[in-house]
Amino acid sequence: MPEKIVIALGGNALQSGKSEATAEAQLEVVKQTCEYIADISLKGYEMGLVHGNGPQVGRILLASETAKDVTPAMPFDVCGAMSQGYIGYHLQQGMRLALEKRGKKTPVLTVVTQMVVDKNDPGFTNPTKPIGPFYSEEEAKALQTEKGYSMKEDAGRGWRRVVASPIPEEIVEIDAVKTLWDTSIVISCGGGGIPVVKNDDGSLEGVAAVIDKDFAAELLAESVDADILMILTEVEKVAINFNKPDQQDLSTLTVAEAEKHKADGQFAPGSMLPKVEAAMKFVKAFPEKKAIITSLDKAVEALEGKTGTVIVNK
Amino acid sequence: MPEKIVIALGGNALQSGKSEATAEAQLEVVKQTCEYIADISLKGYEMGLVHGNGPQVGRILLASETAKDVTPAMPFDVCGAMSQGYIGYHLQQGMRLALEKRGKKTPVLTVVTQMVVDKNDPGFTNPTKPIGPFYSEEEAKALQTEKGYSMKEDAGRGWRRVVASPIPEEIVEIDAVKTLWDTSIVISCGGGGIPVVKNDDGSLEGVAAVIDKDFAAELLAESVDADILMILTEVEKVAINFNKPDQQDLSTLTVAEAEKHKADGQFAPGSMLPKVEAAMKFVKAFPEKKAIITSLDKAVEALEGKTGTVIVNK
Repeated sequence: MPEKIVIALGGNALQSGKSEATAEAQLEVVKQTCEYIADISLKGYEMGLVHGNGPQVGRILLASETAKDVTPAMPFDVCGAMSQGYIGYHLQQGMRLALEKRGKKTPVLTVVTQMVVDKNDPGFTNPTKPIGPFYSEEEAKALQTEKGYSMKEDAGRGWRRVVASPIPEEIVEIDAVKTLWDTSIVISCGGGGIPVVKNDDGSLEGVAAVIDKDFAAELLAESVDADILMILTEVEKVAINFNKPDQQDLSTLTVAEAEKHKADGQFAPGSMLPKVEAAMKFVKAFPEKKAIITSLDKAVEALEGKTGTVIVNK
Repeated sequence: MPEKIVIALGGNALQSGKSEATAEAQLEVVKQTCEYIADISLKGYEMGLVHGNGPQVGRILLASETAKDVTPAMPFDVCGAMSQGYIGYHLQQGMRLALEKRGKKTPVLTVVTQMVVDKNDPGFTNPTKPIGPFYSEEEAKALQTEKGYSMKEDAGRGWRRVVASPIPEEIVEIDAVKTLWDTSIVISCGGGGIPVVKNDDGSLEGVAAVIDKDFAAELLAESVDADILMILTEVEKVAINFNKPDQQDLSTLTVAEAEKHKADGQFAPGSMLPKVEAAMKFVKAFPEKKAIITSLDKAVEALEGKTGTVIVNK
């Protein structure tokens, strides 16, 4: 039986800091990314892909808000759905090309994914995740009154809308992902999934929120009974004392060690912290399995045990 | 064996002429539409859905072009991919709710769909399909020079970009649609599919074009070996002498009759003509099967043989 792997792709897999923020430039970065992912596929793994969408959904929202006097602005959940179509399409093209170069014809496809979150998630009472453009105080207060948005001042740069970052509880389209898994590379839970809450009548309703894509990937890995959760980011290994003279890169990390480092504030919130937390959650749920955090270009070596940080439940 | 049906949803299934062009208003229309589609599902059919995207992709493009000095404008193929995410997400929510009301739990999901078109399709040398905002002659000439767009004057209203409307040849993600068909209601080929051409190296490349969603639905119906192609529109039956005193509604239409009426200019290009042509193509390919053109609210009755226009190959 081939091993199953869920791969979470970070922002650098979709957009280069050096390149333009155009869709055309992004497609070139995506094609490079897919070369590395196709190498993993070539090693015989069955895989599912989860991607972030921060810069992309930010640009969709920015365009929508900028043009709001010409055409109605889109709700944030719809912007998320649009980013799944956009990024999924690019990844499908990039993966197909990279696989064909390697003589593989595995279908690659994108499932538009809704993610159930708890309407009582504490994130909703104290939203902290900034999205979209900056506003003046006056504009911000107007949006607060007119649309009920939560607005916060952002470090002297202006006012921004803030939304919740709730924990994902259920992947609505999980059965389809499972059905397709054996024959295809499935891109799902893009941007963490489109956040929806369950109403009392059983219906789903989109909400303005941002689900962390690492937690979404973790939930997917649990749901498909994956052997490995691989979180790809900018660094080869998780480190403590990061960017300090005594920086120490870690080859393995037990849950107990990770908990201690986390308590010591070693992992940056919104950056390495959610990755380590998602990794811990996975190996706590499946103590015999492993999570790997490494960089895109070291992914194959990490799977061979040569580099990266392996998180295990010991 | 349950009968297989591919349903093509027209613009009125997603947006009411009377309501606002907001995503929120559209979701309400989609929910109404899904009540009718769920009734078809309840009759025991296996179904796949194809939807148009004209007004929606138009608004995405308009927002993108309006905001182009703030954030880079999106290529048209990416706008199409975004519209698939957006409309698919709404249909997923609407269908789930409508099915739950009827005690059904059939999963509903959206596959982001690329559609191969021939790069030598005659449409590319003489593009005719207008997309996006109106421009002044000066702006239009500048876009023609800078971006290589084809621009045409539009009946005194200003200049618009025109793109090709090529014939769809292959649904790239068809294997996934087939795999999911037995267990799910699959939304695919949204907006006719994202048009891509095949390069000599086998790679796919997005192009600015609009594929007619009726032809996309027809290709899907052929590909999944559907029993019925159902094209839903604003009228209960296809008519000749439409909107004239001697209008004659048609209950059945043979391919031979349809060819004659078409030659007589009875069907409006861009409106009833592509629907009749798609229906003819389907029953020519599968002479023992049938295509039905009717309105959303008469769909179930039409399947019972009580109304609608049935196109047959005789």
